[in-house]
Amino acid sequence: MTAAAFVLVDGKPATSISVLDRGLMYGDGVFRTIRLDAGQALWWPEQLAKLAADAARLGIACPADEVWQQDVAQAVAQWPTGVLKLVLTRGTGNRGYAPPQAAVPSRLVVAGPLPAWPAALWETGIEARLCALRLARQPRLAGIKHLNRLENVLARAEWDDPAIQEGLLLDEAGQVIGGVSSNVFIYRAGELLTPRLDRCGIAGAARARLMTRAAAYGLPVREVEFDLTALLAADEVLLTNSLIGVWRVAKLDRRVWPQPAIYPVVREFLHA
Amino acid sequence: MTAAAFVLVDGKPATSISVLDRGLMYGDGVFRTIRLDAGQALWWPEQLAKLAADAARLGIACPADEVWQQDVAQAVAQWPTGVLKLVLTRGTGNRGYAPPQAAVPSRLVVAGPLPAWPAALWETGIEARLCALRLARQPRLAGIKHLNRLENVLARAEWDDPAIQEGLLLDEAGQVIGGVSSNVFIYRAGELLTPRLDRCGIAGAARARLMTRAAAYGLPVREVEFDLTALLAADEVLLTNSLIGVWRVAKLDRRVWPQPAIYPVVREFLHA
Repeated sequence: MTAAAFVLVDGKPATSISVLDRGLMYGDGVFRTIRLDAGQALWWPEQLAKLAADAARLGIACPADEVWQQDVAQAVAQWPTGVLKLVLTRGTGNRGYAPPQAAVPSRLVVAGPLPAWPAALWETGIEARLCALRLARQPRLAGIKHLNRLENVLARAEWDDPAIQEGLLLDEAGQVIGGVSSNVFIYRAGELLTPRLDRCGIAGAARARLMTRAAAYGLPVREVEFDLTALLAADEVLLTNSLIGVWRVAKLDRRVWPQPAIYPVVREFLHA
Repeated sequence: MTAAAFVLVDGKPATSISVLDRGLMYGDGVFRTIRLDAGQALWWPEQLAKLAADAARLGIACPADEVWQQDVAQAVAQWPTGVLKLVLTRGTGNRGYAPPQAAVPSRLVVAGPLPAWPAALWETGIEARLCALRLARQPRLAGIKHLNRLENVLARAEWDDPAIQEGLLLDEAGQVIGGVSSNVFIYRAGELLTPRLDRCGIAGAARARLMTRAAAYGLPVREVEFDLTALLAADEVLLTNSLIGVWRVAKLDRRVWPQPAIYPVVREFLHA
């Protein structure tokens, strides 16, 4: 977000947060990134449910849906189309790692413009690269969209070629986990496969939605382990997140997928 | 720190930081915890050198020593004895993981009171416990005192018995790494051993100082791998950090070390 972004802190317009907030001191919090479209926060029920589930795994109490919805109403009045980021931290506390008994969580809402992606990317597919950074395995944090994101920062810092839209991440054992800012699916032998995210990675809302919709459509989808060789051998590679919906990978380093396979169908049912 | 803490943001008294700071959004920054004693920031040269080295590993430019020293002078005027925390983040940026080309780092200084530890702890030794959480291995972040500290938060949340001063952490492979807020040394067969920190853990300033001083004193000290069995079999277990200096472990779950071994000597040369 730029300095022009609209920001609420605990429901009130503000631009700053206490230096003593544990979100800053320890990354002790969770977040969501949501697409705003024609005044609506897309996939709201799934997004809020995932925020609450992630917060619960860290022992942070999540405010009620109505509380967030009042914030969102203020944000969409300023940015009917754009990006909405929700952040929930454990709040301020004394020095030291011990979570305060009586912590009052901090609730942040930031709205701003969508990235300027060319519309053609949804037609031609995108170019991706393999990141050198390998994700560490930490089951206690796996799947959670928490504020400890240095691995993503270091991976994203590996390239600055604007033609490359996404970087692919493997874990320390060489298993495919996802993109720096997206989840990954491969299409092979008539089914979709997506990495298990019980050791690392972030389980995004678009990934969950694609899995539900695929099953309803009759397209088999499974969470499994697979490595880079399996990905390169796939008929198609798809990337999902809440801003892009779904992209297909047209090029990954030297591997090229010139034609879409299941992509047009997935794109259709994901947004239906 | 409490709300009564003294805070500087970029050298000016302040209590808050931009919501868009990457320290909050991603934990994209580093920090130091320093003891203030009689108006002095203890071990300042080592502390600043480590802050700069950690920042460099994340590609964050560290302000010059003079800049920090001006901040510290303001802080010690308020808290001649206490705890000083320095935080350096990559600064504010647009949305997204990519580090901004022209980022201006944010410089935070927080001073407050020392924890109320009974002086007897330095005489009797302390009680520790083994944490269930296992640290993930991430060589790219290992050793750095960065702001992604959810593992420490979750580990510290495992106990609330005030009689237990520290929790011991193993990594995913079962190797000893350190305490939740300290580094660990074991004393065995006339030498000190401390875990290698090239896959996880934080390499603290007190650890570095103890290693240098031990070598100068003629006490052999080595960085190695060792597991819990080796630790339990040790003649003595020592914990270090910049606030406590050094403690010996008198009890770890059911294992008891009734008498000190090398501790009195280490305590003496660490502070000499």
